[in-house]
Amino acid sequence: MDFFFEPNGIAVVGASPEPYSGGRNLLTNLTLGYKGPIYPVNPKYDEILGLKCYPRVSEINGSVDLSIIFVPAKMVPHVMEDCAMKGVRGVIIESGGFAEVGQEGKALQDQCLAIARKGGIRIWGPNCMGLIDTAKPYVFSFVIPKDMKEAIRPGHISLMVQSGLLSGGFIITLMGNKTLGLAKVCSIGNKCDVSENEILEYLLNDPSTKVVCLYLESFINGRRFFELAASSDKPIVALKGGKTPSGAKASFSHTASLAGNYELIRGILRQARVIEAEDFFEMMDIARTLEKNFHLQRSTHGKPRIAILSYSGASGIVTTDHMEKYGLTLAHLSPQTRKRLEELSPDWMPVNNPVDYWPAIEKNGPASAYKHALSALHGDPEVDGIIVHLYAGHGIWFLKAEEILAGVKGLRKPILFWLMGPESIREATRLPLEEEGWPTFHEIHRTVRVMASLFERLR
Amino acid sequence: MDFFFEPNGIAVVGASPEPYSGGRNLLTNLTLGYKGPIYPVNPKYDEILGLKCYPRVSEINGSVDLSIIFVPAKMVPHVMEDCAMKGVRGVIIESGGFAEVGQEGKALQDQCLAIARKGGIRIWGPNCMGLIDTAKPYVFSFVIPKDMKEAIRPGHISLMVQSGLLSGGFIITLMGNKTLGLAKVCSIGNKCDVSENEILEYLLNDPSTKVVCLYLESFINGRRFFELAASSDKPIVALKGGKTPSGAKASFSHTASLAGNYELIRGILRQARVIEAEDFFEMMDIARTLEKNFHLQRSTHGKPRIAILSYSGASGIVTTDHMEKYGLTLAHLSPQTRKRLEELSPDWMPVNNPVDYWPAIEKNGPASAYKHALSALHGDPEVDGIIVHLYAGHGIWFLKAEEILAGVKGLRKPILFWLMGPESIREATRLPLEEEGWPTFHEIHRTVRVMASLFERLR
Repeated sequence: MDFFFEPNGIAVVGASPEPYSGGRNLLTNLTLGYKGPIYPVNPKYDEILGLKCYPRVSEINGSVDLSIIFVPAKMVPHVMEDCAMKGVRGVIIESGGFAEVGQEGKALQDQCLAIARKGGIRIWGPNCMGLIDTAKPYVFSFVIPKDMKEAIRPGHISLMVQSGLLSGGFIITLMGNKTLGLAKVCSIGNKCDVSENEILEYLLNDPSTKVVCLYLESFINGRRFFELAASSDKPIVALKGGKTPSGAKASFSHTASLAGNYELIRGILRQARVIEAEDFFEMMDIARTLEKNFHLQRSTHGKPRIAILSYSGASGIVTTDHMEKYGLTLAHLSPQTRKRLEELSPDWMPVNNPVDYWPAIEKNGPASAYKHALSALHGDPEVDGIIVHLYAGHGIWFLKAEEILAGVKGLRKPILFWLMGPESIREATRLPLEEEGWPTFHEIHRTVRVMASLFERLR
Repeated sequence: MDFFFEPNGIAVVGASPEPYSGGRNLLTNLTLGYKGPIYPVNPKYDEILGLKCYPRVSEINGSVDLSIIFVPAKMVPHVMEDCAMKGVRGVIIESGGFAEVGQEGKALQDQCLAIARKGGIRIWGPNCMGLIDTAKPYVFSFVIPKDMKEAIRPGHISLMVQSGLLSGGFIITLMGNKTLGLAKVCSIGNKCDVSENEILEYLLNDPSTKVVCLYLESFINGRRFFELAASSDKPIVALKGGKTPSGAKASFSHTASLAGNYELIRGILRQARVIEAEDFFEMMDIARTLEKNFHLQRSTHGKPRIAILSYSGASGIVTTDHMEKYGLTLAHLSPQTRKRLEELSPDWMPVNNPVDYWPAIEKNGPASAYKHALSALHGDPEVDGIIVHLYAGHGIWFLKAEEILAGVKGLRKPILFWLMGPESIREATRLPLEEEGWPTFHEIHRTVRVMASLFERLR
């Protein structure tokens, strides 16, 4: 796979100087970070964006490991022949119009595959958005360069998606949170040759990848996928597209995928300790929390035992309701913990879990009350994780991460924050929390779902 | 109820000049918009924030309709006696420490209630956050004034919550979206006297309220609630706290509520055409969409028929999967609609629902492609609603609401947007869309859930 991830020489077939065209975007994106030779290919031009342009790949002087192809589907077999002649090792076909659109497209795809097999070329795609490696940064994709530039933040989550546009627009949106970082993004489309298993294997061996996220509609070789996933030390989070009959039908016209029996797939994913997500941002919320490497103790009671620290009774109750749904249970606080919590609570307020700490906050101020309670709860051996409801506001409610978490010692158990407050202040509280490794969320159900997901791999 | 919502003279018992204290917040918030006489009550001071301070309510010169009480629970019965002597008509007891903390608190609460009954006083609370009327604006609550100031945006959604802090911190957070407006917020706490039914009735008759949202842990009189809800023209959205055994137990120590049998309650809510939400922001997302008064046609096929317009096959599939879960079905597009859609699509791309319009967008540019498709889909009688996936980006992807929706004619069917893109541009696209009455969402499952909720009242 190295000629895809670290190619020596790249041809861009379908390069174009036209503003807003995919062919221009591809070229511009390559110049963002790729230091090797870039060869635009288009018989209409002698030069594009200051680079010498070639009429065909086979006429390029210099070695070409990778061709990125972005021309109409019916022209692709011809391009493939030319690539074979040149000795190209891999092609990323980003154009659509292949198996996903019907018989005619399928024939074109098969034709490309036959040429590739004969010429010793591997095909990535077709109908995909290529590859991004944020550390370099390499953007082998036709996404809008200006949008993309804002979106490159190196990190340790890698994403493989059986989809075209999603990988572009979605990760750009995702990066808006300013805290999540990505390692590699692989959009694999119809995966007529290079399969999800090959990419998965690559990512599992990739030192910069700590967590793998997958959007998949089908499995080329389920057994191999299972072997890879089940033996992986790195957590894998997957969103399956086409779970329902109508979704599966739509998936056939998307990437020509046979979505398979979802109940069966679900069982296999669970056995392989793959964490399933229901939506795209949920997948990333789970992944960014898994990345933190929290200390997960296995509860002797079965369900993970969670403490809720809240300034609002109602939020504590709604959190409890969601916990039951997601297989978490309220921790029974040890007598010492209760005693410590009661030190700051007024006499009339009994301490239970959910800990409604409003009276203690009122009496002692939020900073001391949160610090005291977090230290007590985190130190309780009967507590496996803590969900904190935090209000980030003006005045005494402007809370500093290092202050309220100062009493948390030893191995870090998961402490997840549901963060409320006026936007500007909330952001000023969220970013330091995230930087210190404490994930924050905007909705209660998501906070609970992510907490539950952390413990799924212990099963 | 008028002496709560439009009182003539307000006493603040427990007023204080201490920075960050609830008693000071209460006073400051009153001065935000209340034009009638405000009487701080606290024996320790002669004057607070420039207002003459009284040692007790009975010594106030001038009429006092409403006393807001924020002193420790054990002092409240004494204050109540004094209010009765003065002829106060209503009290809002915002302090906690009553029935929610055990027998002793329950006794105090009962004592207050007895005094109120005898003196002809109505009690709102205790253990609550009072009342906000954004149109005036009246903030009869101890929420932080500076945070609150950012949060007042008049609108037509009213919120009643059986909770203290939630009503403060939550609505402040909610207002961060810059588009949602509230009419009245009523935090009713332990509701020992004034019940959810009285407030609900008031809100259903309130001209500024178009949609009512409720967070409730218990029902004082379920039959009356049912009558009110079932006969209401205004949509009601409810989040029930304490659905699960552990949640119900927590709810008892929150507002001393007996949460009741959830399955039964669920059935009653459904029969009364109350829409149930699972989380706080979900409740508001449903409410702000209901407020738009979309034209809802009753499908002859049973399930509402939805068209999905997407630039990404994967997102279309995941949307379809969620639709099946929430009881929506993919619309069968009429032959005319398919023909119109195909006008902009390349020959090789068949048009199905979900409409993967990427090839048409690539060919014609996003603005024309979206405009064309939205016009065609909205005009199709076989389509009851449309979920649109929109990428808001730089260059040709900076889309204007009035442009892409220019072809939508006649009664507005629901068109809900899942909006992606870099943060700054997304916001610049979101606000005009919302202002034009087209709701946008950040996650697919939420977009689908809200679409489904619109049709629930047609059942």
